[in-house]
Amino acid sequence: MSSNDGKLLLRTVRGERQDRPPIWIMRQAGRYLPEYRELRASVSGFLELCYTPSLAAEVTLQPLRRFDLDAAILFSDILVIPDALGQKVGFEAGEGPLLTPLDEAAIARLSPDVIVERLAPVLETIERVRAGLASDRTLIGFCGSPWTVATYMLGGRGSSDQAAARLFALRHSEAFAALIDILIRASTAYLVAQLKAGADVVQLFESWAQNLDERAFDEYVVGSTRRIVEGIRAEIPGAPIIGFPRAAAALLPRYVAGTGVDLVGLDQAVPLGFVKGALPPNFPVQGNLDPLRLAVGGDQMARRAEEIIAGFGDRPHVFNLGHGIIPETPVEHVAALIEIVKGRR
Amino acid sequence: MSSNDGKLLLRTVRGERQDRPPIWIMRQAGRYLPEYRELRASVSGFLELCYTPSLAAEVTLQPLRRFDLDAAILFSDILVIPDALGQKVGFEAGEGPLLTPLDEAAIARLSPDVIVERLAPVLETIERVRAGLASDRTLIGFCGSPWTVATYMLGGRGSSDQAAARLFALRHSEAFAALIDILIRASTAYLVAQLKAGADVVQLFESWAQNLDERAFDEYVVGSTRRIVEGIRAEIPGAPIIGFPRAAAALLPRYVAGTGVDLVGLDQAVPLGFVKGALPPNFPVQGNLDPLRLAVGGDQMARRAEEIIAGFGDRPHVFNLGHGIIPETPVEHVAALIEIVKGRR
Repeated sequence: MSSNDGKLLLRTVRGERQDRPPIWIMRQAGRYLPEYRELRASVSGFLELCYTPSLAAEVTLQPLRRFDLDAAILFSDILVIPDALGQKVGFEAGEGPLLTPLDEAAIARLSPDVIVERLAPVLETIERVRAGLASDRTLIGFCGSPWTVATYMLGGRGSSDQAAARLFALRHSEAFAALIDILIRASTAYLVAQLKAGADVVQLFESWAQNLDERAFDEYVVGSTRRIVEGIRAEIPGAPIIGFPRAAAALLPRYVAGTGVDLVGLDQAVPLGFVKGALPPNFPVQGNLDPLRLAVGGDQMARRAEEIIAGFGDRPHVFNLGHGIIPETPVEHVAALIEIVKGRR
Repeated sequence: MSSNDGKLLLRTVRGERQDRPPIWIMRQAGRYLPEYRELRASVSGFLELCYTPSLAAEVTLQPLRRFDLDAAILFSDILVIPDALGQKVGFEAGEGPLLTPLDEAAIARLSPDVIVERLAPVLETIERVRAGLASDRTLIGFCGSPWTVATYMLGGRGSSDQAAARLFALRHSEAFAALIDILIRASTAYLVAQLKAGADVVQLFESWAQNLDERAFDEYVVGSTRRIVEGIRAEIPGAPIIGFPRAAAALLPRYVAGTGVDLVGLDQAVPLGFVKGALPPNFPVQGNLDPLRLAVGGDQMARRAEEIIAGFGDRPHVFNLGHGIIPETPVEHVAALIEIVKGRR
């Protein structure tokens, strides 16, 4: 018996079905929590918060003090990688990121080899969280997947159509490939360091997987994710890895077959029945309650949560939202959802 | 033999496979055309252009004067329905719409019964286009689908996550159902009038189908589209109808099975092989070249276009983009794409 036996979420990622799914919530450490808002107000910059281990560890643990969640997820941001590579990252008032879009010359000036050194404060945060977390709770590390991070680096901000990055990739395919290579190397080193610092599992967030045709998806998303997964496992054999290709939809089977992740996150647009035909039997999944159902709460939320639990009842399943919790979500709704998932209601 | 025999596109919608797919391009009458930009500059408001039959007919026909396209699509906007219902519709400089979001009281004040009367200029545009269009070219009418139009009416603008409308639907389900009912009645009457005025086929644009879970998709998208299809066919038996649920992805099979449309439009994120398993054999499809591949042009565009033609070669197929053409697209790329699709290159 290993020391991980008590960690329901980690065991689920490893392919073990539970009687009731373990649960965590994307952005569970965030603005819907009054204690987060209070702490956030004491720090001027968002990245300053990410880079201050004592505060980032406290924020990471806040939701677990309040709720019976099965996992903590490192409080950080997918844009610490561009920041550590030397691209200036700012945030608007609503915390939306703003970068100066890279051109070909700026890509050549990025510094991929010092990433772990520059992100040492994040690794210290993980050590602190590990020390403060109960032994039966899973600690999740993460980074953004190369394509998603590239959409910000090339487009300067979040974009629903990712047009700037998609055009750059078609017009400047060599510079784009160089950028993706840099991101693969940086992400691999960063996630290996997170696992060595104490993360039980790491998640790759591919937040902008939509709008790519299958050729682009295979190249930008599947290929780069596979190289990170292989790179991590070359250093840490069997390292548990979650992939979350948001809105990949009909391309999900390619992602699962091509990347080597252990568990795939599903956004709310994936119908429960689709998974049966599209993914291998017993392949672990995570998701997929619409975060707006949680924000509104009540019977409609409870009904859909129960449907999801039943729908994925035949395979390893980690309960989660289909996307991040929204700031106006009442904390009582989160508590109610956890009771439903734990079968106590 | 009917008088429609020469209309390749209409025959494809009716289920007849062609040796080479007919082609039209979403937003083919638009800002990438210098002649459009010139005419647009002569009119102050965007809706004024939509409501001036002589000008709207000219804009509709412009791309067919320049290119060997198989269809004209009415130049109009999906927001003429809110406008005709009495909700003020404005447009920003980049032509992005701006509305004052409806609340429950404002929904009750909408006027669905005068829609055809108020949209008489659009019907006159169709008559003028019909008169100016070669008899072997198909004329496509259209409107926005109720859910998509509701996202603008409730959110005030285009939104990549449609959060305002999705929250309204969950929080105020009766008022939301009343709004959808109004949009179903208005859209049905409007499309029937378009067909009677001379449109050969009508397309329902569901531009914001993503982010809905299957329950919401069934209710907001599938149910409302089915009622419009049934309503049109009660007036005009066998009326040919295209549905385009953009980004519906894994929910496409539900849309096809549940709505009764004759042909389904596919965005570029739908992999070619997915259609084989997910849609009935021989079910007609439209799409699905990434508009950014057209904007960039060259070999990568040609290769993907040929893949799409081959991939859908076993069923009736209308070639199109996966979304609207973008304004910076060179007109030479459009000409080159048409040559490829027509097999002349």
